[in-house]
Amino acid sequence: MTRKIKIAVIGTGRMGSVHTRNIATLIPQAELVAVCDIRLEVAQAVADELGIQRVVQDYHELLNDPEIEAVLIATSTPTHAFIIKDAALAGKQIFCEKPLAMDLSEIDEALEAVEKAGVKLQVGFNRRFDKSYKEVRDIVASGEIGRPCILHIVNRDPDFPSMDFLRVSGGMFLDLGIHDLDMVRYQMGDVEEVYAHGAVLLNDELKEFGDIDTGLILLKFANGAMGTIDNSRKSVYGYDQRLEVFCSNGTAMMENEKETTAVKGSTSGFTSAKPPYFFMQRYAPCYVEEVRQFIECVRDDKPTPTTGTDGRAAVVLGYAAIKSLRENRPVKVSEIG
Amino acid sequence: MTRKIKIAVIGTGRMGSVHTRNIATLIPQAELVAVCDIRLEVAQAVADELGIQRVVQDYHELLNDPEIEAVLIATSTPTHAFIIKDAALAGKQIFCEKPLAMDLSEIDEALEAVEKAGVKLQVGFNRRFDKSYKEVRDIVASGEIGRPCILHIVNRDPDFPSMDFLRVSGGMFLDLGIHDLDMVRYQMGDVEEVYAHGAVLLNDELKEFGDIDTGLILLKFANGAMGTIDNSRKSVYGYDQRLEVFCSNGTAMMENEKETTAVKGSTSGFTSAKPPYFFMQRYAPCYVEEVRQFIECVRDDKPTPTTGTDGRAAVVLGYAAIKSLRENRPVKVSEIG
Amino acid sequence: MTRKIKIAVIGTGRMGSVHTRNIATLIPQAELVAVCDIRLEVAQAVADELGIQRVVQDYHELLNDPEIEAVLIATSTPTHAFIIKDAALAGKQIFCEKPLAMDLSEIDEALEAVEKAGVKLQVGFNRRFDKSYKEVRDIVASGEIGRPCILHIVNRDPDFPSMDFLRVSGGMFLDLGIHDLDMVRYQMGDVEEVYAHGAVLLNDELKEFGDIDTGLILLKFANGAMGTIDNSRKSVYGYDQRLEVFCSNGTAMMENEKETTAVKGSTSGFTSAKPPYFFMQRYAPCYVEEVRQFIECVRDDKPTPTTGTDGRAAVVLGYAAIKSLRENRPVKVSEIG
Amino acid sequence: MTRKIKIAVIGTGRMGSVHTRNIATLIPQAELVAVCDIRLEVAQAVADELGIQRVVQDYHELLNDPEIEAVLIATSTPTHAFIIKDAALAGKQIFCEKPLAMDLSEIDEALEAVEKAGVKLQVGFNRRFDKSYKEVRDIVASGEIGRPCILHIVNRDPDFPSMDFLRVSGGMFLDLGIHDLDMVRYQMGDVEEVYAHGAVLLNDELKEFGDIDTGLILLKFANGAMGTIDNSRKSVYGYDQRLEVFCSNGTAMMENEKETTAVKGSTSGFTSAKPPYFFMQRYAPCYVEEVRQFIECVRDDKPTPTTGTDGRAAVVLGYAAIKSLRENRPVKVSEIG
Repeated sequence: MTRKIKIAVIGTGRMGSVHTRNIATLIPQAELVAVCDIRLEVAQAVADELGIQRVVQDYHELLNDPEIEAVLIATSTPTHAFIIKDAALAGKQIFCEKPLAMDLSEIDEALEAVEKAGVKLQVGFNRRFDKSYKEVRDIVASGEIGRPCILHIVNRDPDFPSMDFLRVSGGMFLDLGIHDLDMVRYQMGDVEEVYAHGAVLLNDELKEFGDIDTGLILLKFANGAMGTIDNSRKSVYGYDQRLEVFCSNGTAMMENEKETTAVKGSTSGFTSAKPPYFFMQRYAPCYVEEVRQFIECVRDDKPTPTTGTDGRAAVVLGYAAIKSLRENRPVKVSEIG
Repeated sequence: MTRKIKIAVIGTGRMGSVHTRNIATLIPQAELVAVCDIRLEVAQAVADELGIQRVVQDYHELLNDPEIEAVLIATSTPTHAFIIKDAALAGKQIFCEKPLAMDLSEIDEALEAVEKAGVKLQVGFNRRFDKSYKEVRDIVASGEIGRPCILHIVNRDPDFPSMDFLRVSGGMFLDLGIHDLDMVRYQMGDVEEVYAHGAVLLNDELKEFGDIDTGLILLKFANGAMGTIDNSRKSVYGYDQRLEVFCSNGTAMMENEKETTAVKGSTSGFTSAKPPYFFMQRYAPCYVEEVRQFIECVRDDKPTPTTGTDGRAAVVLGYAAIKSLRENRPVKVSEIG
Repeated sequence: MTRKIKIAVIGTGRMGSVHTRNIATLIPQAELVAVCDIRLEVAQAVADELGIQRVVQDYHELLNDPEIEAVLIATSTPTHAFIIKDAALAGKQIFCEKPLAMDLSEIDEALEAVEKAGVKLQVGFNRRFDKSYKEVRDIVASGEIGRPCILHIVNRDPDFPSMDFLRVSGGMFLDLGIHDLDMVRYQMGDVEEVYAHGAVLLNDELKEFGDIDTGLILLKFANGAMGTIDNSRKSVYGYDQRLEVFCSNGTAMMENEKETTAVKGSTSGFTSAKPPYFFMQRYAPCYVEEVRQFIECVRDDKPTPTTGTDGRAAVVLGYAAIKSLRENRPVKVSEIG
Repeated sequence: MTRKIKIAVIGTGRMGSVHTRNIATLIPQAELVAVCDIRLEVAQAVADELGIQRVVQDYHELLNDPEIEAVLIATSTPTHAFIIKDAALAGKQIFCEKPLAMDLSEIDEALEAVEKAGVKLQVGFNRRFDKSYKEVRDIVASGEIGRPCILHIVNRDPDFPSMDFLRVSGGMFLDLGIHDLDMVRYQMGDVEEVYAHGAVLLNDELKEFGDIDTGLILLKFANGAMGTIDNSRKSVYGYDQRLEVFCSNGTAMMENEKETTAVKGSTSGFTSAKPPYFFMQRYAPCYVEEVRQFIECVRDDKPTPTTGTDGRAAVVLGYAAIKSLRENRPVKVSEIG
């Protein structure tokens, strides 16, 4: 029988508690040995629910425990980089939520530490583990529909997060759009240039801190293809998640999932259900799958499906989009670094 | 905090192991205290996987344990009725897989024991717990699309079960169709008369034991409406699960789910994914939901959402369909009993 | 250059005026030389609109004109049979609207006259000329999805015709259902037995003259397959026209057309357009195509795509359904004649 | 009875012959009195087919005929402007195919002549007369889904036109894209700035004359909204025509039409039909409707639904897109004129 990987979760807030529950109940390849949160009572509540014995407030305790092989970092973004560094130094295998950090130099230091330590680092780009996005990629990769020409992504949140969060979010392209800026690379490879436009069309409060609620990015890829990203903070009909890769010999599209498959016919026409409202519903299986694959990569010593390089690249693209938006001109990705 | 219901699973084969996993990992309102299977090693394997301490071969051991409040029976059909009787006598709350039994007098004895003991009995008609079937029912029940007129159900399995199973299955209408014979009651209430037709169009082996692989049932409901059930043993494009309730002021339909939402456009047209192939994929959330609701009914002493009466009624309809098929005439449900 | 077929239209009411317009403007292979209606002013109005020179009240005038090669009969149903007989005697090629007649002996006399005269007779089963029904038939006929097993037809009118019409319509199965009773033969070949059920669920006035507004027919085909027809007089969401042929190796379905391809997403979900409301919109191209093919069959002396035999067979099935409905038993088609 | 408008068609090539047939057979409000083509035999052939008496080679003959009230110009693009000028001088009401001209000064001269003469000018932006595009516009205009935020247009031709045509076409954005550059104004009003990107991904021959086969345009609208246009010369699955207007309170989308509504289920999944292959199929009803509305505007002395200003604006946007493409920077529409 194959050994189980002993893992601890650092940060048991919104995403961290999801990961904790998944590891405890749905990933038999892992053994969840401890949870940690700076707010001890938060970690304790999750531990109680799941019958987890060890609960700590200071993650260093976990890093010092030689029994723990891997850590999953789901703390707030500003703490990711230094916890990664510490964990790498301690020789732990690392799964870290996205984004790696908002500051590129912090990311670079963390990635350097990971490389020196020779540990694995997987970044939580959950959408890469969705079967529908993957099916689109597989169709294109098979070559049966020819060369990729145009990519379109629609990523519209069902509603605004809190204003408090928005003020520190890094802006719509780095927060909401970070998934798309990774997805374009997953589907099409490297980006060479971006041109972005954005506006406040929904909530004037955002103007106070220079953010936008509606935006478009036009991308040019190294493979010669081009694409767009469509982002909105508020889609009243639910979380709108679509993608198309138009190719020289066909097209591959991903449509929205629907909450139910019921359809009502009436004098108003035919009405079908909205997409799942919340990202945690829509992508629930991905959060399991990404950690399951991480655990297997650790167990079998394979490269992780997403890497620190992927984590860094998405942030670089975010800064390129922001620069383009501010200067109203196309920005080469090489301008960012 | 609310108390957890202590439950044991009797029968840990295909469906029983699914229920066991669900209770152990996804239903925090229950505490799984033991599993039982006449093939002890089968129960032991599941218990090992999930860390369940108590494993027994003889279900009477569990019935004698006063700590155990509820049992989930997922043994083979011929054993359902007598285990129900024993469990009722022992005062246990009972969840039993469908069908209750193949013999109506056995069912009647079991239901009598349940009634005498004053325990709850829920029958595992999982589809009643599917959000899409439920949405159709809710739309109709709301009255917004008027009076139900015509019901259609399509229920086509992806492929034949084994010939060994088919020989003892009770025939297509009692085996595959039992879900539909319950669903028609869930959607439309009581059935008064059925007319059934069936044929062997796919596999001549079935003729040896008088079964069919393709069938239609026409139903007349007590509310004046009418309907059809379409059953096939083999649908090469996957598990085909559809329903429509046409009403005087609109219609409510349930379409198939799809494995992914990817769509490929090519010179052949647009191709979308097949439905989930297997009933356990398609109805996975229902298996959790039905037991979760059972547990809550036990905990809060509420009536169960499906009852012994429902379990009996579906079997009666199955015998009416079989009688109609054999005699090639409409059969009143009251002819069966 | 190929010669044009000189044709006259007898009966310029609802369907007749459509045919007249189509021949005059969209079928260059034909030359429309005259129109006829017992209500002369009705024929005159259509003739004026289209610049047709010759307008007559008595169709015998047209039959006596040797220049006229073909006639299209779109008079009221009770007159079809004797006009066919007269036209056949006069050696005209004949296109006649459905149904041929309500009386089987009248049909038989008319068909005998046609056969004796050696002229062509095409019956206006317009749906056979619809590209979507035809595509389903072609998919099945290609053999790629195996042997036909189950046919389903949904044919629901958007609203009741006038009570005056209903009183003389022959009943829902012979009026509304006649298209389906032909379509089942187009898709599956001969029918051996039918079982019908019907009810008044929408308008109690129909009970006065023994008609129904909601009905189901279960059919057994000579090829071993089975099927259902679903008829309703009132579908508030528009003219509902669907079909499925489930086969041993796949399925072929025809979905509803929609008035527009616009879709609105809102807090209520996604709403798409209704089907075209009226049969003349939905089947507009078929009315052109059926007459175009008739003209070409006359011109090139080929057999017509629908024949008198088809016209008779649909009426026979209608009587079988009515007999089954009245006697509540399966009725063999051979019982009717 | 209302009078018929006497109209002549100038230019009876591909589009001109379609208009001629439509006017002759489907627009009873007009009387087609003459056709004209510099290739006399081309005009004669159409006239023969439709029984049109008067056929001329020199359009001046028609302009000199005081009986002719309106002309439809469907000659090659370089001749549009001067024929408009001549027709305006002669006091004719004018329908002209798009684009008005490739040269803005020629357009300005023509529009000046039209204004001086006080005649009507309608430009053939047929898509504005499509019921689906119109439905999207009506949904948005109703205000029920809030403020427009993001527009997306997909317009992909099924295949390349001839290389000979492409060399003189004005480039993809002015030729294929001209419809979209009008549609964006129809849906969203004035455009303030465009940023365009294009590439040769499908056929390297285009590089010889500096054209592209794949392109994206990002637009900023005067109302604060933004949008994209997606153009490709070759979509192997047929003519791809889609649009979305995402709004603050919902979204309105236009999906592709399909050649049939047949769907095949097989082991490969569900396959539905391609869109109509050719623009003349997809937009056939629009070509009738735009001329019908033109005729009614002439008859009732109403403003035309599309104007010379619309015709000019689309060409201006085309030049802005081309300038942006060449200079790789956002271009204000006001830079063009």
